[in-house]
Amino acid sequence: MLEKVVLAEKLKRISEHWRPHLVGELNGQEVKLVKFKGTFVWHKHDGEDELFMPVKGRFCVELRDGRVELRPGELLIVPRGVEHRTVAEGEVEALLFEPAGTKNTGDVDDEVFTARFVPWL
Amino acid sequence: MLEKVVLAEKLKRISEHWRPHLVGELNGQEVKLVKFKGTFVWHKHDGEDELFMPVKGRFCVELRDGRVELRPGELLIVPRGVEHRTVAEGEVEALLFEPAGTKNTGDVDDEVFTARFVPWL
Repeated sequence: MLEKVVLAEKLKRISEHWRPHLVGELNGQEVKLVKFKGTFVWHKHDGEDELFMPVKGRFCVELRDGRVELRPGELLIVPRGVEHRTVAEGEVEALLFEPAGTKNTGDVDDEVFTARFVPWL
Repeated sequence: MLEKVVLAEKLKRISEHWRPHLVGELNGQEVKLVKFKGTFVWHKHDGEDELFMPVKGRFCVELRDGRVELRPGELLIVPRGVEHRTVAEGEVEALLFEPAGTKNTGDVDDEVFTARFVPWL
């Protein structure tokens, strides 16, 4: 039998900020959950479009020409090549959808933010 | 500037049941919204995995070996080749994620349920 993903249950198991965790895969794409607070590093993905969807809390996706505020019930697709960073005043929980193997910091290597290991929940 | 998708606003514009409507595309995949009520037709997708995520209301995804009940905050991935149908007692609103061009009734042609036109919202 197939098993559903209960987002709140999975999110309870995330204890660190910024590291995406896998909850599903389909068609070569991955569904990930992440918790974060604060300001991420500017980066872009040269070959991957990326979907952001808040699950709890609100955050901004900053772009070089503006910023998009997101809350639960909303989503944003950042096309490949577009520089962006996320900014959250409080802790937030979000769902990401992107191709398998996408690096969270894209074209940037960052000692703090780059997640070199993306575990399954 | 990129524009976010506000799910509730998009869903207000859907006036018919069962026909998916496009709200985004990324990496050859499509994000769709759909309203429905009642029982869909049994079908499978030979080449596409499909993600179901309720936005409002609850529904079941029936499988040949059981059923999975879904409500907002939950998602289910139905792998390619797995027969399924959705069943909703009341009207529900849901987000779908699947490869571009996926036919809603998969390997089945159905006069009532097959959506031969999938409009952008």
